[in-house]
Amino acid sequence: MTFSVAVVGASGYAGGELLRVLADHPEFEVRTVTANQSAGLPLGEVAPHLRSLAHLTLRETTPEVLAGHDVVFLALPHGMSGAITEGLDPQTLVVDCGADHRLTDEAEWATFYGGDFYGAWPYGLPELLHGGTGGYGKQREQLVGVKRIAVPGCNVTAVTLGLAPGLRAGVISPQDLVAVLAVGPSGAGKSLKPHLLASEILGSAMPYAVGGTHRHVPEIRQNLQLTGAGAVSISFTPVLVPMSRGILATATARLEPGVSAADVRAAWELAYNGEPFVHVLPAGRFPKTADVVGANTALIGLAVDEAAERVVTITAIDNLVKGTAGAAVQSANIALGLPETLGLTVNGVAP
Amino acid sequence: MTFSVAVVGASGYAGGELLRVLADHPEFEVRTVTANQSAGLPLGEVAPHLRSLAHLTLRETTPEVLAGHDVVFLALPHGMSGAITEGLDPQTLVVDCGADHRLTDEAEWATFYGGDFYGAWPYGLPELLHGGTGGYGKQREQLVGVKRIAVPGCNVTAVTLGLAPGLRAGVISPQDLVAVLAVGPSGAGKSLKPHLLASEILGSAMPYAVGGTHRHVPEIRQNLQLTGAGAVSISFTPVLVPMSRGILATATARLEPGVSAADVRAAWELAYNGEPFVHVLPAGRFPKTADVVGANTALIGLAVDEAAERVVTITAIDNLVKGTAGAAVQSANIALGLPETLGLTVNGVAP
Amino acid sequence: MTFSVAVVGASGYAGGELLRVLADHPEFEVRTVTANQSAGLPLGEVAPHLRSLAHLTLRETTPEVLAGHDVVFLALPHGMSGAITEGLDPQTLVVDCGADHRLTDEAEWATFYGGDFYGAWPYGLPELLHGGTGGYGKQREQLVGVKRIAVPGCNVTAVTLGLAPGLRAGVISPQDLVAVLAVGPSGAGKSLKPHLLASEILGSAMPYAVGGTHRHVPEIRQNLQLTGAGAVSISFTPVLVPMSRGILATATARLEPGVSAADVRAAWELAYNGEPFVHVLPAGRFPKTADVVGANTALIGLAVDEAAERVVTITAIDNLVKGTAGAAVQSANIALGLPETLGLTVNGVAP
Amino acid sequence: MTFSVAVVGASGYAGGELLRVLADHPEFEVRTVTANQSAGLPLGEVAPHLRSLAHLTLRETTPEVLAGHDVVFLALPHGMSGAITEGLDPQTLVVDCGADHRLTDEAEWATFYGGDFYGAWPYGLPELLHGGTGGYGKQREQLVGVKRIAVPGCNVTAVTLGLAPGLRAGVISPQDLVAVLAVGPSGAGKSLKPHLLASEILGSAMPYAVGGTHRHVPEIRQNLQLTGAGAVSISFTPVLVPMSRGILATATARLEPGVSAADVRAAWELAYNGEPFVHVLPAGRFPKTADVVGANTALIGLAVDEAAERVVTITAIDNLVKGTAGAAVQSANIALGLPETLGLTVNGVAP
Repeated sequence: MTFSVAVVGASGYAGGELLRVLADHPEFEVRTVTANQSAGLPLGEVAPHLRSLAHLTLRETTPEVLAGHDVVFLALPHGMSGAITEGLDPQTLVVDCGADHRLTDEAEWATFYGGDFYGAWPYGLPELLHGGTGGYGKQREQLVGVKRIAVPGCNVTAVTLGLAPGLRAGVISPQDLVAVLAVGPSGAGKSLKPHLLASEILGSAMPYAVGGTHRHVPEIRQNLQLTGAGAVSISFTPVLVPMSRGILATATARLEPGVSAADVRAAWELAYNGEPFVHVLPAGRFPKTADVVGANTALIGLAVDEAAERVVTITAIDNLVKGTAGAAVQSANIALGLPETLGLTVNGVAP
Repeated sequence: MTFSVAVVGASGYAGGELLRVLADHPEFEVRTVTANQSAGLPLGEVAPHLRSLAHLTLRETTPEVLAGHDVVFLALPHGMSGAITEGLDPQTLVVDCGADHRLTDEAEWATFYGGDFYGAWPYGLPELLHGGTGGYGKQREQLVGVKRIAVPGCNVTAVTLGLAPGLRAGVISPQDLVAVLAVGPSGAGKSLKPHLLASEILGSAMPYAVGGTHRHVPEIRQNLQLTGAGAVSISFTPVLVPMSRGILATATARLEPGVSAADVRAAWELAYNGEPFVHVLPAGRFPKTADVVGANTALIGLAVDEAAERVVTITAIDNLVKGTAGAAVQSANIALGLPETLGLTVNGVAP
Repeated sequence: MTFSVAVVGASGYAGGELLRVLADHPEFEVRTVTANQSAGLPLGEVAPHLRSLAHLTLRETTPEVLAGHDVVFLALPHGMSGAITEGLDPQTLVVDCGADHRLTDEAEWATFYGGDFYGAWPYGLPELLHGGTGGYGKQREQLVGVKRIAVPGCNVTAVTLGLAPGLRAGVISPQDLVAVLAVGPSGAGKSLKPHLLASEILGSAMPYAVGGTHRHVPEIRQNLQLTGAGAVSISFTPVLVPMSRGILATATARLEPGVSAADVRAAWELAYNGEPFVHVLPAGRFPKTADVVGANTALIGLAVDEAAERVVTITAIDNLVKGTAGAAVQSANIALGLPETLGLTVNGVAP
Repeated sequence: MTFSVAVVGASGYAGGELLRVLADHPEFEVRTVTANQSAGLPLGEVAPHLRSLAHLTLRETTPEVLAGHDVVFLALPHGMSGAITEGLDPQTLVVDCGADHRLTDEAEWATFYGGDFYGAWPYGLPELLHGGTGGYGKQREQLVGVKRIAVPGCNVTAVTLGLAPGLRAGVISPQDLVAVLAVGPSGAGKSLKPHLLASEILGSAMPYAVGGTHRHVPEIRQNLQLTGAGAVSISFTPVLVPMSRGILATATARLEPGVSAADVRAAWELAYNGEPFVHVLPAGRFPKTADVVGANTALIGLAVDEAAERVVTITAIDNLVKGTAGAAVQSANIALGLPETLGLTVNGVAP
């Protein structure tokens, strides 16, 4: 059975990547693409890399245009998907790559985003660990058969996957977590901002949203608290570096007393044992982002710094795949009862 | 029917890319990977981006190890495939990504490469145009059912595809061709040479093999002469630029007298009409290499400079895909009677 | 004696580079900086790399603000400097880094730029060769004591320096010149255009102004014709590559009959013998752009391709220094009677 | 008075940068350059960016060749400078850019480096803060008139400058420090290692020495303990990113109880008030590495994350200038009684 698909926001980077992944998916058929500013243009002009979909024409985003699809993927700036979704059939699977339905706490929404709050949807990170009194399990169980999915923020996915195993197992402290990420500018979208010009980013590394102001911070805390670890405090700093895509998250945590390096490794390996898209590398090996470019893979390297009494985790993902479009398709696969890995490659385009 | 495959030289960039393409091919099963220096290591350690093949172990390249496969892909420095092939069953399909069997003229081999000459094999550029007294057609006709294939040099493919249509149609002169290429360093392989260090290439553009000394020059002439255009003279300069993969070939030629811009466009469009992997962009549009990263696609932009009386063609390919591994698989598909496009994506990983 | 200086357009890339060069110049004192959109901001905020000038405040560009300086440098988009200059004292040295006063031919201006034509000023490329019936010499002779200087276009400088010696000496043909340039995006200025976003340029090479439409084409022809070579025809293609600054110009020309490789080398060496900023590398060696980053140096490599019967020249400059700000200061030094090399480094910031 | 200078290891990146800085220094005259593997070659061939020194010839590193200079700069891999220094006049100023004389604790040397221990020399970080019972002051006081100087490790300088003010002022805890650095590959030198190839680093971010194993860790602890803060524990992770030079150090620390954001800012501003090369940016502004390329400047941005109860500092330096060659010259200036800033620019080459 083939599902008909519409992609909203198809002219942006997230929308383009959704199309790239969907184009090679055997059970999805992209029938409609929309993008308000570019409406009327052929997709081949706006996204010349998408040869197999070049014949499609971008349309305006209206309820009529979106009606009648089995799945609607939204790839929009935050604040726009609430209104659009209201015009859609409740039986349509809506997968939102924006931020609007990620946070469960309205106060956090008000602090970090502002504007109308539309409430949380089932969260599209299948490997997210649940623990503690909420019961042990993984997020994928919450996605079967749902009609609404909120895809995580890309940085959130990298940090969550890197730290959650140790928190659920109780081998690291939920306090004094520190994450610093090397990120490519495609995560910021195709926005015309001076600091995103090539001349500014080539040959340079530049932080942004320093000091806990990044919108992904409350989402990280929300995820990590699901592990049952108690109140989480995390210092989070993203650093723009000169690569178009990719996130390398260095996330560190205090070792709990009496925990051995073997305990640490066991916690992470247990958490992701059998996962198709998340892999813990052997001791002494660490990922680079090129390993996962174009792939729905997260690679995690792990070390214990005995002198500093901290665990160091390195997580590499492609912000546009496992960080956005791949997670969207993986979650949609689950929701629709398809094999979870359908249409998703695990092999990176390296070098 | 599934074909069993061995990849020789699996630890290099060309070998790795062959594996990445083959891993998602529905009719090929990679059974054996060899690499002399890394023999004994798991592939997952040498090529961590190839998650779906991480379980394979690299073996030594011996006739015994290679025996019994339907297809053997060779990804080796030139000068090595002749001896290896002698140990292989004549009924095995051998696809050589090295240079050993590309040139038909032994004197050219002696001048540009040297060492033993093993003779030319059927040439793995299906879209190569034949013309003139040799008869009109395309190279793919020469590949059906063959047991030996020589994959073109990556720069050669870009320049040949860019210029051949105009030569076959007689709208440009075969004299005074000029090609300048922006190329990524992965085309030079994983060799430990000082000028290939990241510190040398980041933030810099650097030519090499200036003045007609590059080994791809005679191969370009050989291809272009197949169009029936007569003796070809071409100035060829590659420039290393800071991108890991990709070739952007700017190839220009003198307009023949009385030729209009419409004649020019018609020649190129006719040549590639219906081709699945080679596309001529509309007037006024030109490709960038990001459009074809990871894809078996060649995009060609075309302009006529009336003042300079020259045609300018811009061809973008991924040197490791359409320039090497994709061409190898495309040609193997033809040789084996499979659909030519099987297992090959046309969509690039951009941005 | 110290000259007081104003820089107009100080918030752009050319303006910033002027300030960087002027800040270490022993005889210039930057007293005023202007930039209309950023007027009122401290320079330290707009250009945080210019620590020694961080105390300056950007002002609006008015005749009153600019009055009373010995030298005014203009770093503006074309079309703006004519009106500004009208408000300045004729005894003030005005150095225009924009295009407004480069072309001598009003028809070329109308074709390639449009808008009001303000006429040509003395041209700020001191090493430009004059020849033929116009008399042999160099452009620096035309700059002594002048009060108006038009700084060349950055691509123009690279191509002119690379080809002029052979044309003046008569060893290459002025017809069928071909130049292809790898250029960094800083040459396009700090403009918010989608194709200049980092995500578009990282990992990619992209041509622009293909087919002879670039505004630098008539300026190149104008320069090369000064050599006395007769009518020039040149195919010119710039290719954006992922480095913030730098131009590597590959410029090729047909050898005139009977010319030897030694004749070729002699022509170039003679042309630049004793030049402080332009150097011909020994046979077999070619420059990379990193060699000249931050320096007022042009490095030229030279080869003769016997088979293609063409000379290939490779010229590397920093588009913002020898291509703009360094040329401006070098020319101003000459105009003011200062040592030509004052305040200008020849050493590049590599790697 | 001019000092005669020899640079040992002139063919490497640190040696080349020393020469670039020294070439424009008014009181140093580079008379001798040595490099064992390249001995006999002209410097112009090995380091084509150093035009003003192109006439020098590389010599072998022998006591005879080094004799008779006022200053000898060593730019060698660790383990080599001890023996070389033994052959030098005690009255010669020897400035070692290698690691051999940085650590005061022989046990740390044995753990992190191994081999013969030659003891610590006066430490070449003039802005290093001393505090506590050891007395308040700065390291520059220790450098006046000395004959031996150990230049800090580049990463060490970035992290030390970022954290020391808060530790000396007692506003942050010396425990649970975390530093993650985005670094360019030039810091690893011109060594032919596979992970330093351009193809591996372009488009990718890659950590190394994860888990506290980097040789710069004990040196950071040694520096920070000089502030009087007590035992220091720090988690340190460097991440290679695709820029040739630059370090962006994100260093975070736990706020001590009751400390306000104003206290924090006051501590850093007090520490670097009046420093010519180290600047604390205003609240809300953070540096990028391009701001300091080619300059002897360290820029520090500062934020307090109230929710995470941590201070976040961002320090940008050029690893080859303030991280190596600039620090060497700055310290030599002090040792020789020259103005500390002589020959050192504060303006970065951006964009």
